[in-house]
Amino acid sequence: MKLQTECQEPVIRYRQGSITYEQDSIVTERPVTLVINGEEFVTLVCTPEYLEDLAVGFLASEGIIREAGDIRDLWIQEDEGYIHVSTDRWNDLQRSLYAKRYSTSCCGGGRLGYVYVNDARTAKIKDGIHVSLSFADIFRLMDKMQDGSELFHRTGGVHSAAVCDSRDIVLARCDIGRHNALDKIYGHCLRRQMVLSDKIIAFTGRISSEILLKAAKIGCEIILSKSAPTALALELARQLNMTTVGFIRQDSCNVYTGAERITDCEPAQVMTARLNNLLKE
Amino acid sequence: MKLQTECQEPVIRYRQGSITYEQDSIVTERPVTLVINGEEFVTLVCTPEYLEDLAVGFLASEGIIREAGDIRDLWIQEDEGYIHVSTDRWNDLQRSLYAKRYSTSCCGGGRLGYVYVNDARTAKIKDGIHVSLSFADIFRLMDKMQDGSELFHRTGGVHSAAVCDSRDIVLARCDIGRHNALDKIYGHCLRRQMVLSDKIIAFTGRISSEILLKAAKIGCEIILSKSAPTALALELARQLNMTTVGFIRQDSCNVYTGAERITDCEPAQVMTARLNNLLKE
Repeated sequence: MKLQTECQEPVIRYRQGSITYEQDSIVTERPVTLVINGEEFVTLVCTPEYLEDLAVGFLASEGIIREAGDIRDLWIQEDEGYIHVSTDRWNDLQRSLYAKRYSTSCCGGGRLGYVYVNDARTAKIKDGIHVSLSFADIFRLMDKMQDGSELFHRTGGVHSAAVCDSRDIVLARCDIGRHNALDKIYGHCLRRQMVLSDKIIAFTGRISSEILLKAAKIGCEIILSKSAPTALALELARQLNMTTVGFIRQDSCNVYTGAERITDCEPAQVMTARLNNLLKE
Repeated sequence: MKLQTECQEPVIRYRQGSITYEQDSIVTERPVTLVINGEEFVTLVCTPEYLEDLAVGFLASEGIIREAGDIRDLWIQEDEGYIHVSTDRWNDLQRSLYAKRYSTSCCGGGRLGYVYVNDARTAKIKDGIHVSLSFADIFRLMDKMQDGSELFHRTGGVHSAAVCDSRDIVLARCDIGRHNALDKIYGHCLRRQMVLSDKIIAFTGRISSEILLKAAKIGCEIILSKSAPTALALELARQLNMTTVGFIRQDSCNVYTGAERITDCEPAQVMTARLNNLLKE
């Protein structure tokens, strides 16, 4: 049975003094337990679609697998809410490394992101500009991502994430969990061996350190968001030479780091001088 | 040294075709490791203020402690990012119970919320109406909470949560993590033995199952949010006899469950009949 991503619920709607009784679309929230080699590992509360991608992306984000080929077998018991994975990558060493870096805090980061900086996969984005875009591109891509999420328009209850090039959206996913939305994208790309080094991540959620590192791990060097960044995310973005753009609205946005990838901006040296002057003030 | 909750960063601001260089307030994001009886338990990524409350609220939310008195000692190494707690409540039994119900998923729920329904502390809200409010109260409280969060106004990067009565806000906290904001409130109230059964939770984030259960655990029977609920949260709200109001805007909102606590609504029987008719359609 295909799991539903939304359902209809009765609601009492109050609008400017008058009350109506209506049916409304509500996003579903579904706990799915990831079982590694027969052992329950974690329960992800998610929007129940693209569960294979979610599992692969989650395991890669957590550093447990490096590529889709590290998974020998993957099967889903949809009704029972289990994703089963078998992999040789989950051994005692991995287990103890993982236990050390586990942490929590919804919407504030999740697992202790900043230790990942030492991870070879995140640290590799360092040199050069493989993709650039204009402010017009930024507004177009964000509009397209948000317009494209029908589940968001019907329920208002999901985050959207997309992989883009400077012209268009390549792949978009949504989920009640903002980390899940990115993991679904990561999993999809790993399973299809898509190269993402010249791609851009567009995202509705805030740019926290863990989201920034997830984008870095996926391989993208630009992250666009309609929300705010955190200071730790910006610090990491500078270290990793990534571009961060936040508060993207109809025709305004803030470029925090890596402005040399925005084609409308002044030459890098001029900007650096201006920003350094600001820092001195 | 007092930890900073925000800092100044240079930003390139694009507005309707023109670029300016400015300083902007960015919210800080700080990993803080909770150590129980000398053993590292979890790292919470948070806005670094009210850390004692956060620790107490988190431990109570997780069911590890039941009251502030369960903590024998609590001290903070602020610069190093450690909160140390000693408690007799963290034993082998607790440890194995905890391991069983751990789960993750930022913004989609966090630890496997719905198992908590069997928890005596959440299940106790079942009978009667201890607090009620009008639509005018709802809009006033939400406005007050949002206007009151200076950190939000300066950085745009935090969630706000507040405990209210029908007239005013009693206590408000903000955090980059929406769960943390509620835990800071919970911890504050536990440490001061405040009774919250006749109080209301106002919140900027979505009402997921875990947020709903956290509000139930705190003891409040009404939760107000400017965002969407999930279907699982509404199912739990009905079981726990709680009132959920979402999408609260300037002069509109949706009442999903427990409308008998909204004084402008029709008598409960009339509403039930109307909503049942909708369900039949």
